[in-house]
Amino acid sequence: MRLTLEYDGQDFHGWQAQPAATGQRTVAGELISGIATVTGESPRLIAAGRTDAGAHSLGQTVNFELERQMAPAQLLTALNAVLPKDVAVVAAEIAPDGFHARFSARRRHYRYLVQNRDARSAVLRNRAWHVRSPLDLAAVQQAAGRLVGRRDLGAFGRDPAGRNTVRYLEAIDVRPLPGAADGSLVAFDLSADAFLYGMVRRIVGFLVEVGIGRRSADDGAIVGGDAIRARVAPAWGLYQMGVEY
Amino acid sequence: MRLTLEYDGQDFHGWQAQPAATGQRTVAGELISGIATVTGESPRLIAAGRTDAGAHSLGQTVNFELERQMAPAQLLTALNAVLPKDVAVVAAEIAPDGFHARFSARRRHYRYLVQNRDARSAVLRNRAWHVRSPLDLAAVQQAAGRLVGRRDLGAFGRDPAGRNTVRYLEAIDVRPLPGAADGSLVAFDLSADAFLYGMVRRIVGFLVEVGIGRRSADDGAIVGGDAIRARVAPAWGLYQMGVEY
Repeated sequence: MRLTLEYDGQDFHGWQAQPAATGQRTVAGELISGIATVTGESPRLIAAGRTDAGAHSLGQTVNFELERQMAPAQLLTALNAVLPKDVAVVAAEIAPDGFHARFSARRRHYRYLVQNRDARSAVLRNRAWHVRSPLDLAAVQQAAGRLVGRRDLGAFGRDPAGRNTVRYLEAIDVRPLPGAADGSLVAFDLSADAFLYGMVRRIVGFLVEVGIGRRSADDGAIVGGDAIRARVAPAWGLYQMGVEY
Repeated sequence: MRLTLEYDGQDFHGWQAQPAATGQRTVAGELISGIATVTGESPRLIAAGRTDAGAHSLGQTVNFELERQMAPAQLLTALNAVLPKDVAVVAAEIAPDGFHARFSARRRHYRYLVQNRDARSAVLRNRAWHVRSPLDLAAVQQAAGRLVGRRDLGAFGRDPAGRNTVRYLEAIDVRPLPGAADGSLVAFDLSADAFLYGMVRRIVGFLVEVGIGRRSADDGAIVGGDAIRARVAPAWGLYQMGVEY
């Protein structure tokens, strides 16, 4: 079975299920418990990515094996009836043979939202990073352009030395969200074959530092391992948008 | 003083302050208490519109008189420090002589969000109306077009008979929100010189009934007082976007 999930991360300690003793509420923990309620089974879940505490998803993908036969549409409806309101199953289908939510992924999409204005936001608290200093979007876009392509992005991860940190970053689009009220909501859309752990938040942190003039775009022309120590953008602005297979 | 406010309506019993005995939390109540904390004064507030319980605002406008002199920017910062996280002051300025947030308004803008898909939403729970049946947007737009103009909109209000219910509805734009993940988030943008009480929610309820084929667009060619008994769209999809003076 393959499910696509949406969740509001603000009340979760991230995706990954934690031992019950920790008392930490996680998305995987809720899903495991929902599947057990609906099917009586406790399958092992495989997820496309492990989102951070506080980060959101509109398109987390998971797969698992069920012993009993169940129509995907029936499972979707049953799970949405028992899952808490901050998690929803948005699609369910039979997974093709050999499908692996993590290893079969070809492309992943993330969005990061920055609210760029003086006043804090009430509606988007816990949904966007509030950055007071005005962003120079042309400088941000220029710096973003230098990161695109197949390159060693180890500087934006925290993988131990020796790991392969080459990734193909296909696109970084930075623009005010159309349809948003005052143009102050800026979306950073990133697509890559795979992301290093924490990579989106580090890239956005770096680009925001460029955008407020605290760092030059040239710092973006970084190759492997030169830790740039960019500010890490907070988790609550991050949305896993979807995964392509 | 004139303030522009943003608030997340989900934990409020609407705009209007209630007697303390009711125990109902309101946006005006929070603002009055914030102003008292910051200035020691308890001015009477005049608001552009009284939003319903659960409805949101990105641009509520209020004015009031302060005895003491205070720079608008200083008031904005001080209020945002003491107001709860679900209310924010996004702009503050000296109101021109004779300014009245309600009577000086020339044009008001509202947005209503409908999540049009089978699965409920986790991220937009309490932020959009979940409509499962697919909307025929062409039919919705056609019906919306018939409502635009200066006409008696009493059928979409609940004003007592004899009141003037003629309003100039300048525009109703209905379209999937660009930038939203899967195109399933539909925005209804309405602009008018003034709105009857409950009018946006009744118009959207009516248009959604047209969009799912439960009602024909012709029903929209309604004149004064013929109550069409449209479904009232829930408050949590409603956003007061801003007021023009």
